[in-house]
Amino acid sequence: MPENLLKGKKGIITGALDENSIAWKTALKAKEQGAKFVLTNAPIAMRMGAINELAKECDTIVIPADATSVEDLEKLYDEAKEYLGGNFDFLLHSIGMSPNIRKGRAYGDLNYDWAMKSYDVSAVSFHKMMQVAEKKDIMNEWGSIVGLSYIAAQRVFPFYTDMADAKALLESIARGFGYRFGKSKKVRVNTISQSPTVTTAGSGIGGFDAFYNFADSVSPLGNASAEACAEYIVSLFSDFTRMVTMQNLYHDGGYSNTGISEEIMEKFSDKK
Amino acid sequence: MPENLLKGKKGIITGALDENSIAWKTALKAKEQGAKFVLTNAPIAMRMGAINELAKECDTIVIPADATSVEDLEKLYDEAKEYLGGNFDFLLHSIGMSPNIRKGRAYGDLNYDWAMKSYDVSAVSFHKMMQVAEKKDIMNEWGSIVGLSYIAAQRVFPFYTDMADAKALLESIARGFGYRFGKSKKVRVNTISQSPTVTTAGSGIGGFDAFYNFADSVSPLGNASAEACAEYIVSLFSDFTRMVTMQNLYHDGGYSNTGISEEIMEKFSDKK
Amino acid sequence: MPENLLKGKKGIITGALDENSIAWKTALKAKEQGAKFVLTNAPIAMRMGAINELAKECDTIVIPADATSVEDLEKLYDEAKEYLGGNFDFLLHSIGMSPNIRKGRAYGDLNYDWAMKSYDVSAVSFHKMMQVAEKKDIMNEWGSIVGLSYIAAQRVFPFYTDMADAKALLESIARGFGYRFGKSKKVRVNTISQSPTVTTAGSGIGGFDAFYNFADSVSPLGNASAEACAEYIVSLFSDFTRMVTMQNLYHDGGYSNTGISEEIMEKFSDKK
Amino acid sequence: MPENLLKGKKGIITGALDENSIAWKTALKAKEQGAKFVLTNAPIAMRMGAINELAKECDTIVIPADATSVEDLEKLYDEAKEYLGGNFDFLLHSIGMSPNIRKGRAYGDLNYDWAMKSYDVSAVSFHKMMQVAEKKDIMNEWGSIVGLSYIAAQRVFPFYTDMADAKALLESIARGFGYRFGKSKKVRVNTISQSPTVTTAGSGIGGFDAFYNFADSVSPLGNASAEACAEYIVSLFSDFTRMVTMQNLYHDGGYSNTGISEEIMEKFSDKK
Repeated sequence: MPENLLKGKKGIITGALDENSIAWKTALKAKEQGAKFVLTNAPIAMRMGAINELAKECDTIVIPADATSVEDLEKLYDEAKEYLGGNFDFLLHSIGMSPNIRKGRAYGDLNYDWAMKSYDVSAVSFHKMMQVAEKKDIMNEWGSIVGLSYIAAQRVFPFYTDMADAKALLESIARGFGYRFGKSKKVRVNTISQSPTVTTAGSGIGGFDAFYNFADSVSPLGNASAEACAEYIVSLFSDFTRMVTMQNLYHDGGYSNTGISEEIMEKFSDKK
Repeated sequence: MPENLLKGKKGIITGALDENSIAWKTALKAKEQGAKFVLTNAPIAMRMGAINELAKECDTIVIPADATSVEDLEKLYDEAKEYLGGNFDFLLHSIGMSPNIRKGRAYGDLNYDWAMKSYDVSAVSFHKMMQVAEKKDIMNEWGSIVGLSYIAAQRVFPFYTDMADAKALLESIARGFGYRFGKSKKVRVNTISQSPTVTTAGSGIGGFDAFYNFADSVSPLGNASAEACAEYIVSLFSDFTRMVTMQNLYHDGGYSNTGISEEIMEKFSDKK
Repeated sequence: MPENLLKGKKGIITGALDENSIAWKTALKAKEQGAKFVLTNAPIAMRMGAINELAKECDTIVIPADATSVEDLEKLYDEAKEYLGGNFDFLLHSIGMSPNIRKGRAYGDLNYDWAMKSYDVSAVSFHKMMQVAEKKDIMNEWGSIVGLSYIAAQRVFPFYTDMADAKALLESIARGFGYRFGKSKKVRVNTISQSPTVTTAGSGIGGFDAFYNFADSVSPLGNASAEACAEYIVSLFSDFTRMVTMQNLYHDGGYSNTGISEEIMEKFSDKK
Repeated sequence: MPENLLKGKKGIITGALDENSIAWKTALKAKEQGAKFVLTNAPIAMRMGAINELAKECDTIVIPADATSVEDLEKLYDEAKEYLGGNFDFLLHSIGMSPNIRKGRAYGDLNYDWAMKSYDVSAVSFHKMMQVAEKKDIMNEWGSIVGLSYIAAQRVFPFYTDMADAKALLESIARGFGYRFGKSKKVRVNTISQSPTVTTAGSGIGGFDAFYNFADSVSPLGNASAEACAEYIVSLFSDFTRMVTMQNLYHDGGYSNTGISEEIMEKFSDKK
């Protein structure tokens, strides 16, 4: 692997829950490539043992913050800036949660307070992270902001329910704020639409195994792993992608543009 | 004009504010094509004189209902069913409002309570209309549900702020519920992405004239009028479009797929 | 069914091979809705008995023409204009053929002369139909031109090989000429992206049954039939859709925006 | 800048016409990042002095080849393999030409032989490069193939005429062959949809200045330069993007997802 792709870059990585998380792998990869960053997670979602261990491995600290709270974000940025000794070059938003999914409510039986919670945690928090960052003028020019999405924002995966809508919202926010931040600070904002990934969060969704297997059968390269996603995120934080902004980028082994694969054909042939 | 495209069909039309509204034109056109329907609007948004006049013209009644209230929707459906003497073949969602736009908050200075209100009024209300309809089993088979959207769901129009996100949410909800309703009742759900339209709601947005002129200069057929939109809605309620579902359909004179027009070229030529 | 949706409209319908063809069903439906039209097909593709029977049923004539030949198109238009007594309101392009598919050449082993033939017959002929029509000024204002496409233009269906590329070309041509024709004559141009359809042409493609079954399992409304497609085409020829142009319109029971269905989930669950 | 992003990687770069070419900049950047490669161009398009100078700077050779000729490609691959001492990790397709544009034929007056030439040179050559590469089994696993496209493949830019269709074809070919090559060799295939770029080829298109200025006014980051594009290509050749395939990736400073910018608003405001 090459070195120093993120040399001298500073940032914040949210959502490193445990060693399966995309954010966790991103932290390790960013460290390897020379970045300095602060880890953060919602107090309620933190597995203190785990994330502290990651912090140690990355030679950094954890600053708890609820990304739905503007106050928490302000505090997070202030403390991170002090710790890092300067403004930020990158932010990773890797946050999502749906009470409707957790409690098994179908899409035709949504609890609307919970749906609002899904939107707030999974999408509006991304806006808040950017609005607070812009107001504090805490991003360096040519910085890069990435959020994690899923193709359910474009196509229906019935068991993904209101998270699909939250992801559509997230991607729209990436475009909307990407425009602003591009104008004001040359900061780019993109979402990555990642393969179904065996993370603690992902695999909590009902029918996850079927999602996963189907996508793996469709994708010519197979599903993209969390580690591959971390590498892709690093490329988007690097100076090699400075003019890519307001995009939703599929990192999915070709799933999104494959209609049918030979494997699927086999399963649906009349001859069987 | 042909006749009886909606003969025997029953439904509900929301959002007829005044004679400039797309919903208003849709009511007139649906009446002309043989449909029976009930008009509804939020008590707070109703201009009583105006909508009562429309009701008279369409030989129907107005049932006030706040589409963000599940209770109001239940009452609306019960009363409309009784009035119409049967279940529904079509629903038109034509509802949108952003407190952030009304109060001039920029996208980098959103009030998040208001943003949630924008989503609820402009998008989640569409889900509520469908969830209540499905629970009450009040749609006839091969019924058609339409919501009104705008291309800001795909591309940034800076002054459209959180309404852009609300429209992205609306379109996602159309897909998500379209899948469900297709399976359960053969009901189709689509959104129409309409040209900027000179309605009382539309023209309240800052910079509306520039939106409108620019879009008109780009579109080879010019901007689509509210009346043309009403005709298109009628075609989507008719039996000629029964297998079109979960789509966002551009009704915009070609705007969405035009990169640049000769008129725009003129304005940006170095020779000028 | 309502009547007279196409009353007084005149046009040309290509590609009616036999009673399974979408074009065949479109002819019957257009006749039923009051249109007058001429049928045409390539001399080489015509099943004389069949198409003459259709012509009789539709009270019209057949004018053989190879749509890849500008000369043939000129002659077709002249004769059709004379027969119909005036200019055209609609054109249906329903033409496609790939020698590579016919002769079983895989996508990694294309014969490039044949690929050029696929493009010419399946896509460039659409351009030719429009270029000749525009040069002859033979379309009435607010006329409507439709071509038939397939989602292989967006996503890979391995056995569709160079027809996928031809469909991408077709859709691009619809946009490009739609812009021109919109400006010059208010004529709209769209493609319909239709479900896999059991036609003589469609079912000749290797693995068609698997395509068909898979799509039918994914689509909440099931695959759209040729007859439903004919109805949709009629709606696009009618005056209810005058501002829809340069679009690729999915007529597929929801296939295009469904990621996975419950039926597919079942097949891919680990529990099985 | 980091180093060695392409250390040990071998490949072929087409289309380096002169120092303004994206391919030219890519060669310099790839060299800087540790790649070894061969340069090629069509004999007819080569400016011998210029490309030889680039070859010297990159410490490599030039092998003339017409990418529309399967024979030439076979010879190119054989010789390049011998020179490089092994199979390839990357290919850059940067080839496009339209006789219709060169000779000023409008989209409504296409010469169809020339259109076929446009498709062959600008799009089918990409298929040929891949078909020959696959047949020769000359790509290493996890290799990366990139073609250069333009948003005219999605939206109409009137003066781009049949090049728009050629680009749509090119992108379809990237998907189609990307599927195949993913399955057979884990090779990924993508297109980059680049901003209008001041290259010798690009600026030959009529009205280029208006294209360029308009896009620059719309894009929040401004138009992406050829050099930035070269950097992006390097990231796609690197191991950081291994699971991205069959995508059309916008490298355009945000143009593609911006509907209107404040600058455009100004120009179209009634107040002016």
